[in-house]
Amino acid sequence: MIILKEKIESLDKLYRTNFINSLSGFKSANLVGTISKEGKTNLAIFNSLIHVGANPPALGFLMRPVSVERHTYNNIKETGYFTVNHINKEIYKQAHQTSARYDKDVSEFDECTLTPQYTEAVKAPYVKESKIKIGCRFVEEQEIKFNGTIFIVGEIMEVIIPDDVVAKDGYVDIEKAGTIAISCLDSYHDTKRITRLSYAKPGSEPKEIWNVD
Amino acid sequence: MIILKEKIESLDKLYRTNFINSLSGFKSANLVGTISKEGKTNLAIFNSLIHVGANPPALGFLMRPVSVERHTYNNIKETGYFTVNHINKEIYKQAHQTSARYDKDVSEFDECTLTPQYTEAVKAPYVKESKIKIGCRFVEEQEIKFNGTIFIVGEIMEVIIPDDVVAKDGYVDIEKAGTIAISCLDSYHDTKRITRLSYAKPGSEPKEIWNVD
Repeated sequence: MIILKEKIESLDKLYRTNFINSLSGFKSANLVGTISKEGKTNLAIFNSLIHVGANPPALGFLMRPVSVERHTYNNIKETGYFTVNHINKEIYKQAHQTSARYDKDVSEFDECTLTPQYTEAVKAPYVKESKIKIGCRFVEEQEIKFNGTIFIVGEIMEVIIPDDVVAKDGYVDIEKAGTIAISCLDSYHDTKRITRLSYAKPGSEPKEIWNVD
Repeated sequence: MIILKEKIESLDKLYRTNFINSLSGFKSANLVGTISKEGKTNLAIFNSLIHVGANPPALGFLMRPVSVERHTYNNIKETGYFTVNHINKEIYKQAHQTSARYDKDVSEFDECTLTPQYTEAVKAPYVKESKIKIGCRFVEEQEIKFNGTIFIVGEIMEVIIPDDVVAKDGYVDIEKAGTIAISCLDSYHDTKRITRLSYAKPGSEPKEIWNVD
């Protein structure tokens, strides 16, 4: 079927939310950990986190600085730090539960039975149960004028990762680490690698790369 | 292992590129189709496309307005339109091949054996072989000052989608449509849904939703 903008605007709100949220494809599944200047921890699930650059290393994610995401935003602005923690198969239900509208004084770590973990380099709590963890320093925010969302950029200061998921060429086997994917707002997906493909060049077909160890 | 920023900066360039590109988690797999004002089509793979908003419906993606992505950027600025086409299992090798550095006069549609498809509503070519296609009107660009990348925002004007992948509540079963996920820069992944989870509320555990038809 073909659905035009006018039809989309006339859809029931919940239907439209599910439908439009499905259209970008698969999404990353991460928990963003922060702490307020008073020392209250916060944890929130985000499915909009993307790669921003490798040199200097940076990540970014889109947020609505209202509702449940406001605590994350305020903490990042107060302390200048946040952590990114991959959601794996063992913790996806707890991760999902962080999206409930808890009061500012309540820590999602406690309510969702996840464990804060700290390092010297980063002023924000990691999630101990996550296997791949990235500590970031807040460097920039850009408001999307079209709808008031904010793209937050963090420079990667620290990476905590199991030795056995990093291949010789730097490729990280996130599947082996149990990292999952999200679609729509509430759908969680396991993955199975089809293959890696070699660097594309005009005039030659990409080859499959199997040596990911 | 724990890797600090100073160590990351000292890594071999290819290793660092693979490593940092792996850290955001799973990525969407889309082909962005555009056309120049002279009528030359262009097609480029992007793994940074994310949901921006449901009302008004909008998508966005991050690009480096240099190298192979420049043709996409120039065309979007010239015509004001682009298409987003989900990459499925049948076309992922052709999709990967669009990242080769072809000259401006060469169309990736021809070189990668994919078929342009047009509608009245959108001034950009869709990929016929893709099953989920979104036509967008360019509405905004925001430069990330930290590294000069540009976040492009498009308003969704048209969606072309098979009837049988849209559930009663608007959820799109993108897995059923064959949509795949990407990790790192070159790794392609099939998915298997674990479950959908109900809207999270404080004090109650999320329930599994199985009625996705």
